Amino acid sequence: MIIGRVLRRSMAQIISGKQVSSEIKQSLKDQVASLTVKPLLAIVQVGAREDSNVYIRNKIKFASEAGVMTKHFQLPKSTTQDQLVKQLKVLNEDSSVHGIIVQLPFDCENNINADMITNLIDPSKDVDGLSDINAGKLMHGQVDGKTSYVPCTPFGCLELIKRSGIEIRGCNAVVLGRSKIVGSPMAQLLVWNDATVTIVHSKTKDIPSILKKADIIVAAIGKPNFVKAEWLKPGVVIVDCGITSVPDPSKKSGQRLVGDVDYEECKKVAKAITPVPGGVGPMTVAMLIYNTVDAAKKRQGKM
Amino acid sequence: MIIGRVLRRSMAQIISGKQVSSEIKQSLKDQVASLTVKPLLAIVQVGAREDSNVYIRNKIKFASEAGVMTKHFQLPKSTTQDQLVKQLKVLNEDSSVHGIIVQLPFDCENNINADMITNLIDPSKDVDGLSDINAGKLMHGQVDGKTSYVPCTPFGCLELIKRSGIEIRGCNAVVLGRSKIVGSPMAQLLVWNDATVTIVHSKTKDIPSILKKADIIVAAIGKPNFVKAEWLKPGVVIVDCGITSVPDPSKKSGQRLVGDVDYEECKKVAKAITPVPGGVGPMTVAMLIYNTVDAAKKRQGKM
Repeated sequence: MIIGRVLRRSMAQIISGKQVSSEIKQSLKDQVASLTVKPLLAIVQVGAREDSNVYIRNKIKFASEAGVMTKHFQLPKSTTQDQLVKQLKVLNEDSSVHGIIVQLPFDCENNINADMITNLIDPSKDVDGLSDINAGKLMHGQVDGKTSYVPCTPFGCLELIKRSGIEIRGCNAVVLGRSKIVGSPMAQLLVWNDATVTIVHSKTKDIPSILKKADIIVAAIGKPNFVKAEWLKPGVVIVDCGITSVPDPSKKSGQRLVGDVDYEECKKVAKAITPVPGGVGPMTVAMLIYNTVDAAKKRQGKM
Repeated sequence: MIIGRVLRRSMAQIISGKQVSSEIKQSLKDQVASLTVKPLLAIVQVGAREDSNVYIRNKIKFASEAGVMTKHFQLPKSTTQDQLVKQLKVLNEDSSVHGIIVQLPFDCENNINADMITNLIDPSKDVDGLSDINAGKLMHGQVDGKTSYVPCTPFGCLELIKRSGIEIRGCNAVVLGRSKIVGSPMAQLLVWNDATVTIVHSKTKDIPSILKKADIIVAAIGKPNFVKAEWLKPGVVIVDCGITSVPDPSKKSGQRLVGDVDYEECKKVAKAITPVPGGVGPMTVAMLIYNTVDAAKKRQGKM
């Protein structure tokens, strides 16, 4: 039996996206109350995928609680690309609409080019920040929000990183994943916040040794419990964008949601970590409504 | 006195941008000969900066040798933003013009918003690839050139990296610099060629330890002789985009051009390296004309 000193590690700060998003909601509500323009978000859906329905309900609920109006255009599965194009043109031209999002993926009987549709949204109403123009502005370092919109999930992640108290400038940040929606814009956002950024993906060799040097990790690869505690530098800040349903017989539903990070073990090593669920998820919705309010403010400024 | 085995290091392969660009010129000439459309590049300049004049002469010369026509619009220093906007609109609408570039910086008596002007160029004629839309397409992983243009300097660097024979996929690549024109698009281009990419800049701590792990280094920071041989992993491939004039009393002109990399020392450690001058420089021009020929081919495909 080895008798030794047991080092008690202090547990990580748990960064609650639920709480931060609720604070943002309150702040937005106050801002909206002082606007003469009533912010309006148009949500365009084709078909009725159950997951899309849930996401849209969450967006409408948050918006409503923040005093932001929504219009949900639920188009039938039989919608053609031309019809969708026409719908978007109407919304682009409607000056009472400040933000437009197209819920993806489509649940449609016809082929619709999602890229083309995303890029049809007027960039000044593209509150999801997914158009090529908004991506290009981000790559070109326009992160002050004056003339562009940052995609909601990485924007929310940045807010959570800031709440950890870490100074991003000069940090080594590692982004796991290079998706259009999360990884790629996240990396740019960190670069322009002066972090040294490494982009890691499925073709990367020796991910553990790269993570070992990271002061900040944003994981967005959709692989449950992928990041292990022994790969981490003690004191790292971890933001987990993963959300995958895995079987769990101990739950009534038979399953539970897990992130890309082995949360239980990693929280013993990290300085701060986001939980799944209740971490990044609520922030995505909050930043969408934040962008919508911002679009309404810009409109008011122009009137 | 220590008697030991002397390890003779073999010198790096010198990747000659001059030679590669000349090969590209020949290939373009053959392609142009088989086109029914005659490629035409419009070069818009305001004022007469001496460095801009030199760059433009190089572009016109390369184009002419490749069988590509150019039209040089040299506008007076007194040009207003409105006049420039009008000029670009005319060129956007002129179907005989396949590529348009605006030579920056302006030499102008009036304030002209260079960002706005760059983004005014029809993306399908933006052969410099500097508009937000083309940057966004790059960030979104559209690197096949089917619907977008990659900025010429990083595009040329990628060609040079490929000529070194290194397999980019899975490599650790480090990009020094995050500029709009070189660093940022270079990083994206390497990510979408499956390298693990680290973006290093003025706020990065401990650059030597990051470079030590690099299989590929692209330097674009404009600091003469910044990268030292002792920072390198033996066998690294180095592409040097820097070009700075430094005093040199041994030269007739009293100065010489140097890159961001300590070339004489680094070539003893690297597998392959680009010289300055004669490395990246000629490739920038080559890829501009490559993009112009590509634009003409796309136009022909549509006719």
